[in-house]
Amino acid sequence: MVLHYIGIDVGATWIRIALATEAGEIIKKVVLRTPREGDRYTIANAISNKIENEFGNVLRDVKAIGIGSAGPMDLATGIVINAPNIPIHTFELAKPLQEKFRKPVIMANDCIAGVWGEKVLGLGKEHENIVYVTISTGIGGGMIVNNTLLLGKMGNAHEIGHIVIDVSGKMKCGCGGYGHWEAYASGANIPRFASKLIEEWNLNEQEKESPIYKAYKDDALSSELIYAKAKEGDKLSLRIVDEINKYNIAGFINIINLYDPELIVVGGSVALKNKELVIDRIRDGVHKSTGVVTSIPKILPTKFEDDVVLMGAIALAMKPPENLVKMLKYLQL
Amino acid sequence: MVLHYIGIDVGATWIRIALATEAGEIIKKVVLRTPREGDRYTIANAISNKIENEFGNVLRDVKAIGIGSAGPMDLATGIVINAPNIPIHTFELAKPLQEKFRKPVIMANDCIAGVWGEKVLGLGKEHENIVYVTISTGIGGGMIVNNTLLLGKMGNAHEIGHIVIDVSGKMKCGCGGYGHWEAYASGANIPRFASKLIEEWNLNEQEKESPIYKAYKDDALSSELIYAKAKEGDKLSLRIVDEINKYNIAGFINIINLYDPELIVVGGSVALKNKELVIDRIRDGVHKSTGVVTSIPKILPTKFEDDVVLMGAIALAMKPPENLVKMLKYLQL
Repeated sequence: MVLHYIGIDVGATWIRIALATEAGEIIKKVVLRTPREGDRYTIANAISNKIENEFGNVLRDVKAIGIGSAGPMDLATGIVINAPNIPIHTFELAKPLQEKFRKPVIMANDCIAGVWGEKVLGLGKEHENIVYVTISTGIGGGMIVNNTLLLGKMGNAHEIGHIVIDVSGKMKCGCGGYGHWEAYASGANIPRFASKLIEEWNLNEQEKESPIYKAYKDDALSSELIYAKAKEGDKLSLRIVDEINKYNIAGFINIINLYDPELIVVGGSVALKNKELVIDRIRDGVHKSTGVVTSIPKILPTKFEDDVVLMGAIALAMKPPENLVKMLKYLQL
Repeated sequence: MVLHYIGIDVGATWIRIALATEAGEIIKKVVLRTPREGDRYTIANAISNKIENEFGNVLRDVKAIGIGSAGPMDLATGIVINAPNIPIHTFELAKPLQEKFRKPVIMANDCIAGVWGEKVLGLGKEHENIVYVTISTGIGGGMIVNNTLLLGKMGNAHEIGHIVIDVSGKMKCGCGGYGHWEAYASGANIPRFASKLIEEWNLNEQEKESPIYKAYKDDALSSELIYAKAKEGDKLSLRIVDEINKYNIAGFINIINLYDPELIVVGGSVALKNKELVIDRIRDGVHKSTGVVTSIPKILPTKFEDDVVLMGAIALAMKPPENLVKMLKYLQL
């Protein structure tokens, strides 16, 4: 008998579903738009229908289903609760799929899935202490310390985007807090932070000719534009990128001093599309810093590119972490 | 046969040694000054002699010895390495004691001992997610997440005093980094930070009459004096304490968002001698903050008072954490 696994990545805009071999290789990948309206079962039903249509013929060989979802979530009941980035904020996820397909459904936060994917299938195979960091719309993380996946009392022991790194609290975070890393350096917040910098700085004439200054005046700043222009050598963009990286470097120093990892794997669109301006600069900054109190780990981009959460979901299905399984009370139903 | 354990707390100024019952109750406690000069065996020899003299008659009933020491350390070899606060910076600790007494010696960083003590013998008995924080000469922490003691690749996954919370880097930390929590709020650094604040602030006439202003001008500021005067209602002292607590509150928000604990136990002389001005104010600040992304844990002072590391050392001897034992290669010799 040929075994298969199904992995599901539930994101703000897209839901991606993959069928994988016993060894975790993706055979087929399908995508659907995350439903934007409906009731608490709409999303699970949409996933369920897609799986039946696309993978119906191999379902009996599927051993388990893994899910990495935007959060927060109540792992005990398998429900996503108050997810700020998903239009239907609260919805059933694991239980309806488990009942429908009669397979164990292993669910976790997307970044927890990410680090598990790196451990089981990716760059972290040989390591016992790994942090996965995503710099994307938001900033998030997943950690394995001494081969244990960190979950915390509610499965939220990984909210690295919400560490205070600017006690002056210049920028307000989407969560309501002040001075959080994510408020300065995530894709969704970079335009606001860049605007604040432009307002504070006394720009010289050359800087005022930057397309970024024009975009600022037209209220059309985006992180994509800033990085694109920085790559072209635009001075104002590079100055903004330098400033953002001060926060990224502080965030990485904190991760290293807090979790003492051997390896930090970086994913997320902002980081992966701008490896030199983000990942390489962070690595340089960490090495130049005098504030790291343990040895500096490897800092590498994920090899899974956009599939990192999907691969994580597959890894959850293949090799469910013991402590996570204990938290998923619905599994015993 | 009556079983006993020995616990040892190796600090910058004092070494404290206790004999405990099988249940972890201290029967006898002795203290010696931490030797300030000598070779790499001087400290272990001093401890060894003290144990022989004081506990020689019950040694055959001692099952194991636990040590909580100021760090950093190489757990694999049981050596303290480059400890900034101990005059003999690098010294043998676990191996000579193990060879001399022919008992297993379980060694860890003092804050790791602290959290283990709370878990085995203290306030954390019922909890799976616990953080111990010390606010003393320095700031440090120990964490248990999902019942696993966090160690990291070198046993340093707990350096919460060295998280950047002021990206502007106003204060330099003893480690060489900038903007670290400890640089603002630990006993050793409060005088420097307070001086900086006094220099920056435009003090009014009333504030200039404060004994703290006088101490500042005489280069005689101490954290003890600042807290003592704050308790008496001195306005300038209270203003400084408020400012220090901004950093403490940011540090605690970070701990909560990073480790999602059910319980934070607080120890260390600065916190324990000023529970209302430090621990109560931090708890209030965390509850008023909008920046906590998980539920707020209990924040309580340790019941062990000054004995928290000693109790932790006893707990290490009684119930050695599995993952720590794996790291202590010298145990297998």
